[in-house]
Amino acid sequence: MNELFKALADPTRRQILELLKAGNLSAGEIAERFAIGKPAISHHLAILKAAELVEARRSGQNIIYSLNTTVFQDLVAWVYSLKTVEEDGT
Amino acid sequence: MNELFKALADPTRRQILELLKAGNLSAGEIAERFAIGKPAISHHLAILKAAELVEARRSGQNIIYSLNTTVFQDLVAWVYSLKTVEEDGT
Repeated sequence: MNELFKALADPTRRQILELLKAGNLSAGEIAERFAIGKPAISHHLAILKAAELVEARRSGQNIIYSLNTTVFQDLVAWVYSLKTVEEDGT
Repeated sequence: MNELFKALADPTRRQILELLKAGNLSAGEIAERFAIGKPAISHHLAILKAAELVEARRSGQNIIYSLNTTVFQDLVAWVYSLKTVEEDGT
């Protein structure tokens, strides 16, 4: 979970996830939406992939990125496990 | 949100949140549950407080920490906004 949260602690990476929500994209298509050059985007994509927030699959010449919703489910489950607080503390 | 995710990207801080789920605790009570000294715990608590994941209030000689569930709601809302993926990508 450390890698997961570290991956989420960057605004560009969160924006990439929000882009992928609307549909799968190649690295090139993602890079077009940002002012910060393709190598930087590739680095962010590698971090997102290592954290299993995105999946990558080859399609011809391109690598297509998609959201990995399984990890989001785990994340929501963890947050909910904290959110259901018994208000019986002192 | 950067501070929020950075705060969550540490196992000790996540364990503190899980402890506080069961009830509010003073810094001393929290430190008793960990093998890493009180100054380190104070540092973790300061980071959790800066990220608004916990609230601190003075009670006599002690500062009592509690979960700030508002931030958890924001976090769940953000994750859900990504999780409701339209599967219409390429």
